[in-house]
Amino acid sequence: MQPPCPFCDIIAGKLPAGIVYRDEHCCAFLDINLVNPGHVLVVPIRHASGLADLDEPTGAHLFTIARRIAKAQRTRLPECRGVTLLLADGKAAGQEVFHVHLHVIPRRENDGVRFQRGTVHGTQAEQDKLTVIANMLTGCLSGDTRE
Amino acid sequence: MQPPCPFCDIIAGKLPAGIVYRDEHCCAFLDINLVNPGHVLVVPIRHASGLADLDEPTGAHLFTIARRIAKAQRTRLPECRGVTLLLADGKAAGQEVFHVHLHVIPRRENDGVRFQRGTVHGTQAEQDKLTVIANMLTGCLSGDTRE
Repeated sequence: MQPPCPFCDIIAGKLPAGIVYRDEHCCAFLDINLVNPGHVLVVPIRHASGLADLDEPTGAHLFTIARRIAKAQRTRLPECRGVTLLLADGKAAGQEVFHVHLHVIPRRENDGVRFQRGTVHGTQAEQDKLTVIANMLTGCLSGDTRE
Repeated sequence: MQPPCPFCDIIAGKLPAGIVYRDEHCCAFLDINLVNPGHVLVVPIRHASGLADLDEPTGAHLFTIARRIAKAQRTRLPECRGVTLLLADGKAAGQEVFHVHLHVIPRRENDGVRFQRGTVHGTQAEQDKLTVIANMLTGCLSGDTRE
């Protein structure tokens, strides 16, 4: 049995939400813990805790719908001057609800929201380490082609 | 004539970069202004300043490749405990290079990186405003179906 999931409850109509879009694969609703008014979450209908549990077509579909929502925000929200798409996968990334969700955040000029960076790694040793990482990721990804 | 674009230059091989993946539609390379080692940007091969200039299949493809990179980071970077996907569209969202790019940021426990939120809107008047926004976005999105 799965533990209770607030997003599954929203999808099932057991919890109220400002739903802005729904199809057979995804649902989009207003985030109650919003950054700016009109902040939307796009989630898969079928429960998936993290990206690893989500099939590729549904993932791509979430992104496509998020882009359409971003376009609607840009068109219809008078103060919207930009949009941030954000997905936190895993507790270390700040994920709090373990049902995949893609944030679509309308941005206003100087709204004070920012993605705070940690340190920038600039020494030669660190650059060398990056080359190792690049090679490792390349090896992991080789052979992938567009489907 | 288009203004100079550093990402187009990387794609064309005119600027060095730690390229980790490339196909006919997108290119992925290490971000030199990194948040954590292994931080990758996924960009379309064909120049697109913002999301509005990018066709839907290529957008969906960027996301699919970003997910594969996230999986590689989780598998191959020993300290990676989560991944943040981030796309800033527009200056107000913090976009600095005007060639669409999707950040794939490996996250470590307590790495100090966070998405700083602004105010949370909780009054009744603000909630009412949200309902209006939900209805507006819904109207804008109705008729969309999965393609």
